[in-house]
Amino acid sequence: MQRKNFGNMQCPVARSLERVGEWWSILILREAIHGITRFDEFQRNLDIAPNILTRRLTALVDSGLLEKRLYCEKPPRYEYILTPRGRDFRPILLSLQAWGNRHFAPEGASVMLVDRATGVAADPILIDRNTGQPITDATHANAPGPAAGPGVRKRLTRKTSATSQDGSP
Amino acid sequence: MQRKNFGNMQCPVARSLERVGEWWSILILREAIHGITRFDEFQRNLDIAPNILTRRLTALVDSGLLEKRLYCEKPPRYEYILTPRGRDFRPILLSLQAWGNRHFAPEGASVMLVDRATGVAADPILIDRNTGQPITDATHANAPGPAAGPGVRKRLTRKTSATSQDGSP
Repeated sequence: MQRKNFGNMQCPVARSLERVGEWWSILILREAIHGITRFDEFQRNLDIAPNILTRRLTALVDSGLLEKRLYCEKPPRYEYILTPRGRDFRPILLSLQAWGNRHFAPEGASVMLVDRATGVAADPILIDRNTGQPITDATHANAPGPAAGPGVRKRLTRKTSATSQDGSP
Repeated sequence: MQRKNFGNMQCPVARSLERVGEWWSILILREAIHGITRFDEFQRNLDIAPNILTRRLTALVDSGLLEKRLYCEKPPRYEYILTPRGRDFRPILLSLQAWGNRHFAPEGASVMLVDRATGVAADPILIDRNTGQPITDATHANAPGPAAGPGVRKRLTRKTSATSQDGSP
C-alpha cells in the first residue's frame, strides 16, 4: 500500500494522522483510554493478529502515546500505560463516537457517554474555552499560526477566498 | 493489506472509522470543510494520485459524506459537496488539529482556529451541552446504550471494573 509521510506536512491534522491515522491505532487507544493495559487484553478485545498488535503498540510507544512498563520479571511481561499525550486523545475519540452515534447507528446507540453523577446521556459539543461560545462554521475559522510557512499561508488564503464565494468556512 | 470490516462492530468509534479511518479520507474531508469542491483542487492541495483520489471520493459519496454534482455538461465535470453528515465531521477535525498543535508542533502552531469576530486563537474543549460541564475522565464515562448487545455490555462492564482498580476511566 502506498504510504506518504504526512508528518512532514505542516498541517496539524496531517501530523496527528501520522501518529494515529490507522484504524487499529485508534481502536488500541480506545481500549487504553478505557483502562486496558496488557497485550492479551488488547488482543482479546480487538480480535487482532498478534504481529499487527505488536507493530501498532510499538508505533504508539515510539510516538509517545503509550509507555511500556515491565510488570513481571519472570517471565518478562510488559504493560502499556497511556501517557498524558495519549490520554489527551480522548476528546477525538468522544467526537468520533458522537458522530458515529448520530449517523451510523440506525438501531440506536450501543455505547453512549453519560454523566457519572446522574447517569444521564451527555451531548458533547466543542466550545471555545476563552469565550464559552460554541464553535461553529459561522463563529470560528482556521488562520495561519505563528509558525506557518508560505505553503500553509497560501492554502489558508485560497481557502478563505473560496469561502467568501459560497459562504462556507 | 489485511482489512477487517469494522462496520459490523457495534462500537460507534469503529463504525465511524469504517467510513473515514484512512488518512486520505480525513484529509479530503479537511479540504471539503474548507470549501474545496473540485477534483483538480483536491488533487493539487493534497498532492494525491488521481486513482487514489477517485477511489476515496467515491467511498465518501457512498458513505453519504459528500454529494457528487454535475457543474458542467460539456465536457461533463463534477464537484463534491459536503452533506450535513460530512459537515458534522468538523468537530473531529478540530479536535485532531488541537491535539496536533499541542503535541506535534514544537516550532509553534502553523494552523490555528481563531474567533472570526476577534481574530483571537480559540481553545476548543468538549463540554456536555446538557449541563455545560467540561467532559473529563472524572465526570463522564461510557455506558451501554439502548441498542447495546451482549458483547458491548460485557466489554463496558469489564472496563468499568478495570477502572475501579486503577482509578482510570
